[in-house]
Amino acid sequence: MGGKLITFIIGGARSGKSSFALNLANNYTSAKEGVRGGDEISPTPKKAYIATAQALDDEMKERIEKHKKERPSDWITFEEPVNIAALIKDIQDKYDIILFDCLTLWLSNLMLNNLDMEKEIDLFCSSLFTVHCSLFIVSNEVGMGIVPDNELSRRFRDLSGYLNQKVAEIADEVYLVTAGIPIKIK
Amino acid sequence: MGGKLITFIIGGARSGKSSFALNLANNYTSAKEGVRGGDEISPTPKKAYIATAQALDDEMKERIEKHKKERPSDWITFEEPVNIAALIKDIQDKYDIILFDCLTLWLSNLMLNNLDMEKEIDLFCSSLFTVHCSLFIVSNEVGMGIVPDNELSRRFRDLSGYLNQKVAEIADEVYLVTAGIPIKIK
Amino acid sequence: MGGKLITFIIGGARSGKSSFALNLANNYTSAKEGVRGGDEISPTPKKAYIATAQALDDEMKERIEKHKKERPSDWITFEEPVNIAALIKDIQDKYDIILFDCLTLWLSNLMLNNLDMEKEIDLFCSSLFTVHCSLFIVSNEVGMGIVPDNELSRRFRDLSGYLNQKVAEIADEVYLVTAGIPIKIK
Repeated sequence: MGGKLITFIIGGARSGKSSFALNLANNYTSAKEGVRGGDEISPTPKKAYIATAQALDDEMKERIEKHKKERPSDWITFEEPVNIAALIKDIQDKYDIILFDCLTLWLSNLMLNNLDMEKEIDLFCSSLFTVHCSLFIVSNEVGMGIVPDNELSRRFRDLSGYLNQKVAEIADEVYLVTAGIPIKIK
Repeated sequence: MGGKLITFIIGGARSGKSSFALNLANNYTSAKEGVRGGDEISPTPKKAYIATAQALDDEMKERIEKHKKERPSDWITFEEPVNIAALIKDIQDKYDIILFDCLTLWLSNLMLNNLDMEKEIDLFCSSLFTVHCSLFIVSNEVGMGIVPDNELSRRFRDLSGYLNQKVAEIADEVYLVTAGIPIKIK
Repeated sequence: MGGKLITFIIGGARSGKSSFALNLANNYTSAKEGVRGGDEISPTPKKAYIATAQALDDEMKERIEKHKKERPSDWITFEEPVNIAALIKDIQDKYDIILFDCLTLWLSNLMLNNLDMEKEIDLFCSSLFTVHCSLFIVSNEVGMGIVPDNELSRRFRDLSGYLNQKVAEIADEVYLVTAGIPIKIK
């Protein structure tokens, strides 16, 4: 273990996926510290949290604040709605662990900004091959309900599933979270 | 085994979660009988079924009748849409096994009755720590579809996920049911 | 292995279930060839693909074409929206492997054609007991979102879950696919 590792955490809305990802990232840190540390004093690993949520309305604002309060204070938060690959490239030399939460919100930000979603997805996924810190990526499963009645939602659902597949394929470990309980599926 | 045990069964609509819960509860009974019984004559365990569905329209009425017919006759049915914690407290000394079906419908009853949902959820979850019979709780996974377009549905989805997480955390065993097939996740 | 085997693959929209089913069917073929072949020259197994999608609009047409291109050329495609049981009966002596994709679309075709869905489901499921080639069946999980607000969607969701349960019960092997990753649940 130690060094580069991509972990992908997928679950439904309010499935506990973000909390699980945070715990996993914190425990992973401890494991790395243990390995490195031995009897010596362990270096404190540097942790970056990439939040994709934009506070466009009160509902969203409340959610963002709630999430922030749940994070331990040793996480540095970066708020970036769109340019995730560039941000990771920029900060990966300064941080041991990056947690990116979440892929689905990022996708909806791409859609809101009228960006070429397929292109952005491919760019993001390619960038994962050159990441050299530990990266935890959180995403939503949105494809297990009834077919949405508008084309935009169907397109979003399709791209979201496509993105999840691509990231899961690249990831070293994948967890599916239901009711707060993870199942390791890869 | 034997004595107090909280089992949580979660699945999608028509996933077979109720039938699985019923089978599990019946088999659990047999197991207990076996342990207690030996060569002696086994006492018949008393089984209570808490149904939360309200027959507000024909569709619901049909569903309720269908479910009732599927239950073996040794289950005593209690119909209670809202005050579940109080009901469990009342009947737990008279029954060995209680099956509560389902958490999601109870939550929607709370919403329909304009009750303080967070408060009721916390009250219900606290009450689980003092249950002293075997309790089986059935719930729906509702968070794996596309984000609902109205705020009420989003709020319901959030609270439902929150409730499922809390109950799963307290439960001794958790099953996820898909297409009638359970996966034991805790 | 070898001979008759029913495999059921369930997953959300864009979960990678169709690709996984195709891979599984292709690998299964190889396995059979290996068993049969030894040092001899293996016979080429004959593979039929039953596609249920109807190109009613451009969106659907595009999806169908995309799926077709993803299939290796040794698969013979049969396009049949409704009479699946009859088609399987007709072709099972000429093919070693049949892949039917997907159950959910078939169900929506039944609904669009105003057919008696319960009757057709029961007919289809009964027919599975007499299949004597290897059959792979793909289906959608559609019951893990919020309750749909129209009765038709709720009815579709119910029947879809009912059908998935019945097929999963008959199947020899069942896989749940999330983000392209299968979990063998039976």
